[in-house]
Amino acid sequence: MRSSQARIRVARVTKDGGRTHRADTLAVEEPLEIRVNGERLAVTMRTPVHDFSLAVGFALSEGIINSADDVANVRYCQKDSGPKGLKPVGQLTPDVDASAALAMPLTLGTFAGALDDTSDNVVDITLAPHVPPPASAAQRQLVVNSSCGLCGRQSLDDVHQSGCYPLDERSNFTLDEHTVMGLPDRLSQDQKVFAKTGGLHGAGLYDVDTGEILVVREDVGRHNAVDKVLGWALMEGLLPLRRHVLVTSSRASFELVQKAAMAGVPMMVAVSAPSSLAVELARESDMTLVGFTRGHRCVIYAGEDRIVPPEVVADDVEVAQ
Amino acid sequence: MRSSQARIRVARVTKDGGRTHRADTLAVEEPLEIRVNGERLAVTMRTPVHDFSLAVGFALSEGIINSADDVANVRYCQKDSGPKGLKPVGQLTPDVDASAALAMPLTLGTFAGALDDTSDNVVDITLAPHVPPPASAAQRQLVVNSSCGLCGRQSLDDVHQSGCYPLDERSNFTLDEHTVMGLPDRLSQDQKVFAKTGGLHGAGLYDVDTGEILVVREDVGRHNAVDKVLGWALMEGLLPLRRHVLVTSSRASFELVQKAAMAGVPMMVAVSAPSSLAVELARESDMTLVGFTRGHRCVIYAGEDRIVPPEVVADDVEVAQ
Repeated sequence: MRSSQARIRVARVTKDGGRTHRADTLAVEEPLEIRVNGERLAVTMRTPVHDFSLAVGFALSEGIINSADDVANVRYCQKDSGPKGLKPVGQLTPDVDASAALAMPLTLGTFAGALDDTSDNVVDITLAPHVPPPASAAQRQLVVNSSCGLCGRQSLDDVHQSGCYPLDERSNFTLDEHTVMGLPDRLSQDQKVFAKTGGLHGAGLYDVDTGEILVVREDVGRHNAVDKVLGWALMEGLLPLRRHVLVTSSRASFELVQKAAMAGVPMMVAVSAPSSLAVELARESDMTLVGFTRGHRCVIYAGEDRIVPPEVVADDVEVAQ
Repeated sequence: MRSSQARIRVARVTKDGGRTHRADTLAVEEPLEIRVNGERLAVTMRTPVHDFSLAVGFALSEGIINSADDVANVRYCQKDSGPKGLKPVGQLTPDVDASAALAMPLTLGTFAGALDDTSDNVVDITLAPHVPPPASAAQRQLVVNSSCGLCGRQSLDDVHQSGCYPLDERSNFTLDEHTVMGLPDRLSQDQKVFAKTGGLHGAGLYDVDTGEILVVREDVGRHNAVDKVLGWALMEGLLPLRRHVLVTSSRASFELVQKAAMAGVPMMVAVSAPSSLAVELARESDMTLVGFTRGHRCVIYAGEDRIVPPEVVADDVEVAQ
């Protein structure tokens, strides 16, 4: 098991002429190969924690699986032999919690040594027998090359054709705007590794009915942080996420809205700006998309109906009388 | 030619209860397929400006080309027929400048209509006859699958094996730390689309000998912004970039340091944190890597020798006497 942090010696320089040498904590970045039924699906540069959730969430985004029943096993692949560490579904315990990783920071020496062991950088998902395997890389290549172009319209259609959960009446909740504006702060309170390294994106899942943030995940890649959250939700049997808000510390790109749509999420709240195509996809998916959410303000780009002014507080009403 | 910006109607909400509806400017995000000799190399979600630089820079990062002589042509692929708009090398004029794009903001209607035309979302690079074409997707897949694992060490080795420019004595410059700390501000002054949308990463190239920032490029993806800068430099015949600093508005991931290494860049200055593997690669490549560069401070993670205190100002010396 790798750590999500490494410590190295750095020089801190300040404008008044100070230069001090000290150990600094960095977010670890390493490649992860994600396989499905032993075939490579993708390689992503990620922070090595919650790898199983990341792999499952990525497979969800790709339309390969959409419930825990679709997954027979998730396991690390061993270096020179077969798979090791078979994990029964629902017991993703090797996904060390970020706070636990915090308790065991690695020195640079340990970190460099860990690079020799590759077994924790390949995760294989075994699909349940009823799930068709994804097309091979060669087949996927062939399909794409048969048309000359691609465009935003095609990207939008691909999402709707790849098995995303359409919203239903349970997604017609409303949330008061003060709660929405407060979500990024609540996310950052749980971003434990970011607090140490300043180098990680965070994503979280807010439950509309309980008012709780169910899970927070971190990664050097914002798409990975979202995959970790949605992969966790899938394995917990929570999909489709009809009564949940996906919160992200980053911008809202097309890719992130796509991932949310695949999980049925009706609302996404981002700290920073969305892109044009992200807004297009949110509007077509009937998803509420909020950006520039910064404590005292936000901008609603799609699905404004779900966000309402806060209820008039009783005390205020009495004062008015 | 697509614009890098789109305008849509949004709701702005503030905590004191205000909700106003108005048009807002967004960064455009669209897929770009990059082909080499007619074969698909990659698809990236990008902001449609400087597409040719992006494609060339990406091919540089992949080790396919490393000078302008390696490129015979760069062109857009037409929707239902052959390539159109053959562009002689060195005349990358369709790369509309961001400031020019600013002068013609699109309404939502125009933007949505533009989605029907896919011809500007596929770029094909024709290699010069002496350049071997990249392995096909199927071949690359085969190579990777023959080993069970991958790790950070392997990623580091891959960079050095894929034809990056090793540094030489011309890279032994020094830069005073005040100049280094000021680079991100100089970059953001030229980030014209970011100023309007708040949604773009920027990258720039600083010339150590002239003290000028030669080029600034923007994109929804930070890797794309860097590819656009390095692709521009390649086509300008500036590689290897021995006397230049790559400045980025983002974090310094492994991928960004890798791209810098492929172009021979001796120093990279980032606004935010580097990852562990980014620092490892910078150290192995003898590259100076600076992070958290914010006007009055910075942190040096690798290659500290190139950054020196500012010369003692004459006035100060006189006071001391």
